[in-house]
Amino acid sequence: MTRDLTALFDPASIVVVGASADPAKWGNAVALQALRGVDRHAISLVNRRGGEVLGQPVVRSVEELDRPVDLAVIAVPEAGFEEAVDAVLAKGVRAIVAITAGLGESGQAGRARQDALISRVRDAGAVLVGPNCLGVVDNHTATYLSSNAFRPGGVALLSQSGNLAIEVDRLFAPRGLGISRFVSLGNQADLGLVELVGACASDPATESIAVYVEDVRDGRGFVEAVSAAVDTGTPVVVLAAGASSAGARGAQSHTGSLTSDAAVVSAACRAAGAIQVHTPRALADVLMSLRQRARPGGRRVAVLTDGGGHGVIACDVLEAAGLEVPALTGRTQQTLAATLWSQSSVTNPVDLAGAGEQDPQSYARAFAALQQADDVDAILMTGYFGGYSGGEDGLTGLGPAESAAAKQIAADASGRKPVAVQSMFPDSPACRTLADGGVPVFAAIEDAAAVLAATTVPARSAWVEPVPVPAPALAAVDYTAARDAFAAAGVPFVKAREVGSAVELDEAALTLRAPYVLKALGLLHKSDAGGVVVGLADRAALLAAHARLVEQLAPPAFSVEEMADLGSGLELIVGGRWDPRFGPTVLVGMGGTATEVLGDVQVALGPVDEHEAARMLRRLRTAALLDEHRGRPALDVPAAARAVAAVSRFAAAHPDIAELEINPLLVTPSGAVALDARIVAY
Amino acid sequence: MTRDLTALFDPASIVVVGASADPAKWGNAVALQALRGVDRHAISLVNRRGGEVLGQPVVRSVEELDRPVDLAVIAVPEAGFEEAVDAVLAKGVRAIVAITAGLGESGQAGRARQDALISRVRDAGAVLVGPNCLGVVDNHTATYLSSNAFRPGGVALLSQSGNLAIEVDRLFAPRGLGISRFVSLGNQADLGLVELVGACASDPATESIAVYVEDVRDGRGFVEAVSAAVDTGTPVVVLAAGASSAGARGAQSHTGSLTSDAAVVSAACRAAGAIQVHTPRALADVLMSLRQRARPGGRRVAVLTDGGGHGVIACDVLEAAGLEVPALTGRTQQTLAATLWSQSSVTNPVDLAGAGEQDPQSYARAFAALQQADDVDAILMTGYFGGYSGGEDGLTGLGPAESAAAKQIAADASGRKPVAVQSMFPDSPACRTLADGGVPVFAAIEDAAAVLAATTVPARSAWVEPVPVPAPALAAVDYTAARDAFAAAGVPFVKAREVGSAVELDEAALTLRAPYVLKALGLLHKSDAGGVVVGLADRAALLAAHARLVEQLAPPAFSVEEMADLGSGLELIVGGRWDPRFGPTVLVGMGGTATEVLGDVQVALGPVDEHEAARMLRRLRTAALLDEHRGRPALDVPAAARAVAAVSRFAAAHPDIAELEINPLLVTPSGAVALDARIVAY
Repeated sequence: MTRDLTALFDPASIVVVGASADPAKWGNAVALQALRGVDRHAISLVNRRGGEVLGQPVVRSVEELDRPVDLAVIAVPEAGFEEAVDAVLAKGVRAIVAITAGLGESGQAGRARQDALISRVRDAGAVLVGPNCLGVVDNHTATYLSSNAFRPGGVALLSQSGNLAIEVDRLFAPRGLGISRFVSLGNQADLGLVELVGACASDPATESIAVYVEDVRDGRGFVEAVSAAVDTGTPVVVLAAGASSAGARGAQSHTGSLTSDAAVVSAACRAAGAIQVHTPRALADVLMSLRQRARPGGRRVAVLTDGGGHGVIACDVLEAAGLEVPALTGRTQQTLAATLWSQSSVTNPVDLAGAGEQDPQSYARAFAALQQADDVDAILMTGYFGGYSGGEDGLTGLGPAESAAAKQIAADASGRKPVAVQSMFPDSPACRTLADGGVPVFAAIEDAAAVLAATTVPARSAWVEPVPVPAPALAAVDYTAARDAFAAAGVPFVKAREVGSAVELDEAALTLRAPYVLKALGLLHKSDAGGVVVGLADRAALLAAHARLVEQLAPPAFSVEEMADLGSGLELIVGGRWDPRFGPTVLVGMGGTATEVLGDVQVALGPVDEHEAARMLRRLRTAALLDEHRGRPALDVPAAARAVAAVSRFAAAHPDIAELEINPLLVTPSGAVALDARIVAY
Repeated sequence: MTRDLTALFDPASIVVVGASADPAKWGNAVALQALRGVDRHAISLVNRRGGEVLGQPVVRSVEELDRPVDLAVIAVPEAGFEEAVDAVLAKGVRAIVAITAGLGESGQAGRARQDALISRVRDAGAVLVGPNCLGVVDNHTATYLSSNAFRPGGVALLSQSGNLAIEVDRLFAPRGLGISRFVSLGNQADLGLVELVGACASDPATESIAVYVEDVRDGRGFVEAVSAAVDTGTPVVVLAAGASSAGARGAQSHTGSLTSDAAVVSAACRAAGAIQVHTPRALADVLMSLRQRARPGGRRVAVLTDGGGHGVIACDVLEAAGLEVPALTGRTQQTLAATLWSQSSVTNPVDLAGAGEQDPQSYARAFAALQQADDVDAILMTGYFGGYSGGEDGLTGLGPAESAAAKQIAADASGRKPVAVQSMFPDSPACRTLADGGVPVFAAIEDAAAVLAATTVPARSAWVEPVPVPAPALAAVDYTAARDAFAAAGVPFVKAREVGSAVELDEAALTLRAPYVLKALGLLHKSDAGGVVVGLADRAALLAAHARLVEQLAPPAFSVEEMADLGSGLELIVGGRWDPRFGPTVLVGMGGTATEVLGDVQVALGPVDEHEAARMLRRLRTAALLDEHRGRPALDVPAAARAVAAVSRFAAAHPDIAELEINPLLVTPSGAVALDARIVAY
């Protein structure tokens, strides 16, 4: 659904319903803001008491307006909200900004009334932002429909929290950032993230899009919209809250909607090519850095400093952020050495070792050499630069050289290798020169490192496979049915037979190779209940175990299986969940039954092909266990990846399945084999 | 060695040797600073050219001074440095601050000359700071012997980097912090960290000690000095650089001394009860928070906010920092509900949900309720507080109530449950009231969370066992000797026999239970070289493996061993290293041969007793693998801990051993048994 949002972002005429003369009321603040755009938009104010508001005449009702209206801002008390919406629809508005809260946030009755209202809005061909929102701003069309003013600039800010938006705006100013459009999402009863991301991506005044979201309603639509924005050159930075269990409690109490599962949101960001951050400061810092356009193509960072302390700390912080500070190649070292003095260290960190204090232009020369080097992907300058002109250390006379160096660095940085600068003197004239030239300057080294890490372009461009058409729903989801379904989808299993009586068991054992595993079926957690017996060396042991399980658990059936040699490989978990918002997801993890303790998992939107499945396996923190190490042979990662891909395709074709799991999948040097399976229907 | 440092921190008379009239010279800046203390100290200036410096008369040589001198600052060029030191020693100085660089930082000859000079200093009964340092300051005795002024306050700053110290000073001011004493460590040729920590701990003007260090020379002495400071009520915060491999490169180029291994430094901080941080900002933030005195006694944090966005993000960030945001108990919820309005969420995060905007005193009431609650250890307030008086959002008239709330919160916070406040308006009058009352206020939520995490008191008070007297050096360190030595120290091993010929092997097999393991001895990495064959089912298989290994590797000897069932337990690594600075250390890790990939290790200063060993095991990230889970029984942690303690005691008694290792130690439900051992002599 692509709707024309011109009436929202650049209306010819605006009415503020609930405009108030009382400075303590929202209706006053919004009217005050709206009137700032009076040169571009015809603006009317409605208040049922009439009179004047902010020196402007007020009409008592929407009906009394003597001209057509494109857009209505509604800031009336809850009791009059629906009536006001109907009135402006009757007046022919094409867009509504619904600030009023209290309708759809809680209770089934409220939500039903909100749904009915939205139907009327849509039937009238209008769009609605909110309700329960802080408003809408377009700084390039002088459309100021919020209680707050937002500093103009190139970032479109879509926020599910009003206070967060105000904080972000405050963080923007010192970073030279501003807002092109601001939309407070509110209840997203009509207009939601998906349409708004699309509308902002096509806005010429918008350079990047910032999203704060607790609840991604249409997950796949969000991925598509973000992908499209990123593909057409508008980066998207996502601050998605609710990763913690306590955070989820907070989110529920906030918007009355469930928080999307954090791992799925991260997978969606990865699939869409969005940059994910976790705090407002990181959001602002990343947006500041994106103004450079260039993003690190890899993890190798050159550190440039004068005086060891800052360089050493920078290396520690970069490595902790997942980046590398490799020793520079001989050629780069020679280039650096030729332009610095003999004390300088040119390995990496590059330490001017006093050359900066002799001549601040040393920084610019070293920086230029590093810009030329092909053995690093980004440059981090850290420490004293910015202080040479201040006389801070009793030294004087270095100001002009530092100023020249700053100009040179800003010129050399422009549009080339990405740069971050940490300075003890971030507000110094030299650092202001850098910032004005588009170089991101940070007061704290960990912020500089975090931005380099966050903006590093992943090894592979973002991509997500379409969800296939649903297959017929499964008739049964018991253990054997699950095994059969997965096997049919292409997942290899250990040989097994479902049996009931001891006679059947004895017969089945003849067709299988000892040692055996006996599983009591029909239990939710077989292992936990003691329903799985392994290492049964022969038929006698098998029959004895059967007799014991019959006595203890009286299960309806058993599975007798060949026992795999767990010592020959590695146990993985492969699972999938049908997410209410993002659809099919796939999970791989180390450790089989110990996965929860190890916490080494990767989640992606499903389905994935075997290449993407292999990449998921490679992203595991302990992926090196899959390789040859300490005398153990390399494991068959392609076979494991094929199994993961098969599971994910199967899951993506089955919206009738809520959760499914192969646990463990044993990966050996010569294949991958499933040892257990489980399917939970919706 | 406890020496009297009065002549350093409060000298009756001072001479600045190398005082300069040239504002571009260090000798000018230092003289300028020193003269600020002229009311308390007699100050002389020496410059071989004579004349005047900064309006003061100058003598041409130390010999010409007409009065005795307590302390000399030496800021002459390198060529005249030793002569200057000898001259001031002849004049009877008791303390020397050696700013001059170039002597001991590089080259064997320079270090030898430095050593000789220090001998002369010590023979004269004097102490020396540096050389190659930025100076010494005591703000409470008006002793200003550095090129830079440092804002007065309660923190003693001991720094191995001059620039870092200047940055820390700049970070202190906005946090209401200042410096009692500053010592730039330089080469630590005479006075080092250990003595200086002790001297600052006994300084009445010092409330806390901040250390920036790349190279802890006397590790055990440092632990003792820091422990003593902490025990007597002076917290110590340590920023130790050089955690990364690249950082170590930088450190080497900086001070010409090796960087201590990061894990050992962290272990030392833990043992000493120091708070370790990794960046200058974190150092300043933690020191700011320590002014509250109260530190979190546990990980449970209550989040207080108005408006869900900030609360949700706070929960995410706290959990990412290793803290918990537990649901509040019914009683606490009732207390909160009684003082807030019905929309407010009282579970945790506590979300005023608009009550703050109605009445900012709601924050104070909720805060007071949380201060009373015994189900949380700390309180984190986050979001809009501070903005109600600014008219930022168009609302007005809330200033007085917010101001009263801030006063109430500061009063309630004082000396009780530790608090951190994040505000969108950190510079607002309300936040200044909080800060003036000792409440740490942060602009960024991740900084607030990091400080709560860093200052949380560990479950156990700091403690380190003394290093025992050395045992006689081992006569041999081959495989069998290592096994025997560990076994004698109390570590259980699988049964094994060292054999040479096939005949010996066959005989030995009779005394062991099949299946067997055969190890070719005399190879550095037996497993990697294919020198270990496992799963030999009977004597025939054993003899065949022997023949193969003889042919392939021709080892001098073999070990034939009973094979343990790896599936019955978990493989650990237990190791130890004699650190050149910190002495014996002990390591435990998950995964046996896979330890490096898993990266789940704990390091402590050795020796440890079995209680501390058990705590190390419990601190492993995946310690839950030791417990009963998913049908697997709990493992014998006490047995593993006894083995770790035995290894650590053995290692601590053997300075003749550089490294030792038991890998793997197999922990089963009924014990722990070593399967392999290795000792590397110095």
